[in-house]
Amino acid sequence: MKALGRHIIAELSQCNPDALRSLTKVKRSMVEAAKRANAEIREIKFHRFSPEGVSGVIIIAESHLAIHTWPENEYAAFDIYTCGDTTNPEKAYQYLIEVFEAKKVVITTIERGIEAPTEAYVHRFNPTETIESAPLPSAMSQAV
Amino acid sequence: MKALGRHIIAELSQCNPDALRSLTKVKRSMVEAAKRANAEIREIKFHRFSPEGVSGVIIIAESHLAIHTWPENEYAAFDIYTCGDTTNPEKAYQYLIEVFEAKKVVITTIERGIEAPTEAYVHRFNPTETIESAPLPSAMSQAV
Repeated sequence: MKALGRHIIAELSQCNPDALRSLTKVKRSMVEAAKRANAEIREIKFHRFSPEGVSGVIIIAESHLAIHTWPENEYAAFDIYTCGDTTNPEKAYQYLIEVFEAKKVVITTIERGIEAPTEAYVHRFNPTETIESAPLPSAMSQAV
Repeated sequence: MKALGRHIIAELSQCNPDALRSLTKVKRSMVEAAKRANAEIREIKFHRFSPEGVSGVIIIAESHLAIHTWPENEYAAFDIYTCGDTTNPEKAYQYLIEVFEAKKVVITTIERGIEAPTEAYVHRFNPTETIESAPLPSAMSQAV
């Protein structure tokens, strides 16, 4: 069995807290993010916490998207896990970075699937600057 | 802002395919896994694919659990992302390893939260043997 998928973890901080507060806005943005990634939506479930914060998941034919927002920290934790070659998960987080006005972003990509080497690539960038990306050193591949 | 959470990715392979095939069994197992982790369940959504395979997500007060099963590959991809100190996510995947009879397991733990260093710890073990765990080398911390 080859790697069955790619799991991208995006830490979005210094966001506009108002954008993270509204269940309607977060849900709508996630649906749009899934569409921009060319994912096929199967199920949608969102929840608003008290006093604030929204969590939501979208099951797609290719796996899932998930989000958790902390307006009080201007922070959102986003995941998109996709299988196959028909999706563009980068378009999903790029869209959310725009919508939530995130000024600091850390992207981690993990290959999913038991027989594949567990390789992680970490991108750390400021959206207003050039994106820098770097694969982890070979030491990591040896370790895992 | 400190690390807001811990995201555990579990790759379960060489499972009993029948256990991965049933939506009812997968859903029930995930709910039980959430309870054993001492998580507070908020929303549950599962989906059965054709010809086979189940995807499901549980939104918990502490973030989420997610699963995708490939009975044809005897493989399940499991995630549990928790915030705070009141949960025991290890109990969730230990339970699922038992229920799905996984003979090979790879666990990856990722700290979530933008200001925390992105540190990953990888555990690779055969459930029938002693668990071996190893933090990634310092080279990784430098890279991220």
